[in-house]
Amino acid sequence: MYLQRDLERGAKGNYDWLVDEVGELGEALDSNNMEAVQKEFADVLAWLASLANTIGVDLETAALEKYKHKCPKCGHCPCGCSF
Amino acid sequence: MYLQRDLERGAKGNYDWLVDEVGELGEALDSNNMEAVQKEFADVLAWLASLANTIGVDLETAALEKYKHKCPKCGHCPCGCSF
Repeated sequence: MYLQRDLERGAKGNYDWLVDEVGELGEALDSNNMEAVQKEFADVLAWLASLANTIGVDLETAALEKYKHKCPKCGHCPCGCSF
Repeated sequence: MYLQRDLERGAKGNYDWLVDEVGELGEALDSNNMEAVQKEFADVLAWLASLANTIGVDLETAALEKYKHKCPKCGHCPCGCSF
């Protein structure tokens, strides 16, 4: 949605925004305002995705490569399937 | 994958882990090691989802409610569709 603006801001600027949003999520959690909490989760995810986009990382691929059907520490899937 | 352990750790403990992982993502970005960067993106997303799960927030729903087909500030979709 904001790719052009994010690209102009650059990775460092987008990372700083991500850090700010994580702080706001912490404040919302302390306040126990669940509507605010939900919005801050959306913002953290949005900034994480924006940062990834600006440096050419596909967030979904990154997550699946590390975590799909396996614990990154032991290499096995904790659900008991054959992975 | 780690729901039981995350529930036992509690929201505050999971939030602290999220903050640590965001810091590690920043260090990876500074190092320009793209393999490390990709893994840290996976970790931040994993801890964000774990934190959401431990307090009953659906991360996908939270993101879609705030951002689906609209800019949260102006209410319109920047792609030019009719939303």
